[in-house]
Amino acid sequence: MPTTVGILGGGQLARMMALAGARLGLRVRVVDTAADACASQVAPLTCADYNDFDAISKFADGIDVVTFDFENVPADTAMFLASRVPVFPNPQALAVAQDRLEEKQLFQRLGMATPTFATVDSLEELQAGILTVGLPAILKTRRLGYDGKGQIRLRAEADADAAWRSLGGVPLILESLVPFDREISVISVRGRGGEFSTYALTENFHEHSILSASLSPAPRSEEIEDTAITFARRLAEDLDYVGVFALELFEHEGNLLVNEMAPRVHNSGHWTIEGAITSQFENHLRAVLGLPLGSTQALGTSVMLNWISEVPDALPLLAEPLGHWHDYGKTSRPGRKVGHATLNGSASEVSDALKRLSAGMKRPSQIDPVVAVLAPQLQ
Amino acid sequence: MPTTVGILGGGQLARMMALAGARLGLRVRVVDTAADACASQVAPLTCADYNDFDAISKFADGIDVVTFDFENVPADTAMFLASRVPVFPNPQALAVAQDRLEEKQLFQRLGMATPTFATVDSLEELQAGILTVGLPAILKTRRLGYDGKGQIRLRAEADADAAWRSLGGVPLILESLVPFDREISVISVRGRGGEFSTYALTENFHEHSILSASLSPAPRSEEIEDTAITFARRLAEDLDYVGVFALELFEHEGNLLVNEMAPRVHNSGHWTIEGAITSQFENHLRAVLGLPLGSTQALGTSVMLNWISEVPDALPLLAEPLGHWHDYGKTSRPGRKVGHATLNGSASEVSDALKRLSAGMKRPSQIDPVVAVLAPQLQ
Repeated sequence: MPTTVGILGGGQLARMMALAGARLGLRVRVVDTAADACASQVAPLTCADYNDFDAISKFADGIDVVTFDFENVPADTAMFLASRVPVFPNPQALAVAQDRLEEKQLFQRLGMATPTFATVDSLEELQAGILTVGLPAILKTRRLGYDGKGQIRLRAEADADAAWRSLGGVPLILESLVPFDREISVISVRGRGGEFSTYALTENFHEHSILSASLSPAPRSEEIEDTAITFARRLAEDLDYVGVFALELFEHEGNLLVNEMAPRVHNSGHWTIEGAITSQFENHLRAVLGLPLGSTQALGTSVMLNWISEVPDALPLLAEPLGHWHDYGKTSRPGRKVGHATLNGSASEVSDALKRLSAGMKRPSQIDPVVAVLAPQLQ
Repeated sequence: MPTTVGILGGGQLARMMALAGARLGLRVRVVDTAADACASQVAPLTCADYNDFDAISKFADGIDVVTFDFENVPADTAMFLASRVPVFPNPQALAVAQDRLEEKQLFQRLGMATPTFATVDSLEELQAGILTVGLPAILKTRRLGYDGKGQIRLRAEADADAAWRSLGGVPLILESLVPFDREISVISVRGRGGEFSTYALTENFHEHSILSASLSPAPRSEEIEDTAITFARRLAEDLDYVGVFALELFEHEGNLLVNEMAPRVHNSGHWTIEGAITSQFENHLRAVLGLPLGSTQALGTSVMLNWISEVPDALPLLAEPLGHWHDYGKTSRPGRKVGHATLNGSASEVSDALKRLSAGMKRPSQIDPVVAVLAPQLQ
């Protein structure tokens, strides 16, 4: 150190990586298509299209390692960069994670159970898929979907036509809409020398298909935890993955099904900033730089509340002794992730704080399910 | 929020404030006389002389509140800013802290014991001062001294001439060089509404008159702690102080003497980044913005090691599970503060980590005295 890290993508994940990097004395530079990308408030920004190889080439000059804050980096861009400078995670791993079909096929090859799925490139394949996958099912674009975008639920065979009209024309995947008791994620980090470490399992809560809250450590059996960690490690080793990634799993009656991986730092790991010895952001940087990984040990119980569309009044949270406030410096926009808060302490302290906050909140529905999951731990 | 905070001074303290502020969604801008001031890596910099009121006026445009990362801001500049925008701490408090004589006179007025002192504006006053203060003594410039600069020790009356030749011509103060068992500091924060809170007492270790290490919580009696906190509160209330400040005290045979105050976030409070629920940097920003203060509660035991002149090899520290690395992005220079590290955990974990680090360090003398102070806690 000092070392210069380039990040493709300048959103809140890049911003939080840049802040973690600044502490370590790293120089962080970001490239984004938006001139006002929120990471530009804390790191120099190159505003360019990811396919503008002249601009990308200039960006790469003087950078020691390149990484990403989003998974949909064009494969050609990732390969172009990798020919000039170390790129982590490697472009092949990124390519697999970009395609829901390739990803699920890999999960299966690695012995990781997934919901049943079928590839869909025509209305006929969709109709055939409904028979093999069953109903209800969910039709998704294989690429570029997130936060419930590019997805349609099918409840009856008659829904096929409308779903095809809405999404058809790009490669699709039909997945069984499995019943599940909860979604959990495991945030892992793998170093350049193969060192592997995971954070405590996280239970995720959604509203309108967007993550609304996370609780970590999630209540869990030893078996569930072992399986989740085994899956994550197997995947990381197969992909020769370097950096932080998230694996999302459905738990149903004690069984785990793998939903998807995110080849980057992840929203369900934001609690690690205050709730673990080393945050996911610092550990991602340590990994891609080949530095020793930091301890992933959790410090007590953490609950992360996501701020969607607009940031609420900060005062109630700031007045909570366990409250940590994060605002990404973005303008408000429907569905946009604009900030989050983390409460960190003992389970009972966190539960008490959540109850106080819920009482004053516009959307207590964001908090009450978390309080319910915490309740059995308090007895 | 979002709110824009202006900081006069762009060194590592401004840098760490800017990083804490970015997390909260604040826009932070700094002004410094050096174009490469290290805070400029994480926040927009105005490079200007503090007496260039045109530049300072432009800097103040669009800023919601102004604060400082160093105490020697010209009084005229602070007053000029205060006529346009809220400035915290207030310029009067800053003025008192800038002058060792005024500061000590205030301590006395508030019933806070200090080493004996005398004002010195001539060789005759120095000779008379030696008689009232006694020897050994230390002759200091009243203004602009720090880290042992602008100070000369006097061991015999015959030293007076040489000391006067070296420092004379500016207002001086002669202080009794009191014997002390240790130096402790108390980092406090006072909000705009008068709320007051202190961090755990910190014991400070020096090499060549520069802080080399800090340990918090310092081993202490209840009486010592109560006295230190009472002194800090009395001072803050008298000055109507808003923000974080440090009060440095000498402890000798169970008694406390006040040495000096620093009207800003302080090197001996760097451990609060990982070692307290809310860091001194975030709490300073909360205070000057009139937000609720965050909890100052300590999380276990913390030891901060200062990196002076150059940053050592980071790997041994990064390989310690309890280790947190801070590099200010500065170039090396003799006597310059370029980074620090914090170890945070239980007292025995921290002690064990320190022993491992000491074994591989160029300057084990930086660590060994801290290990000795921790030892009685481990029995």
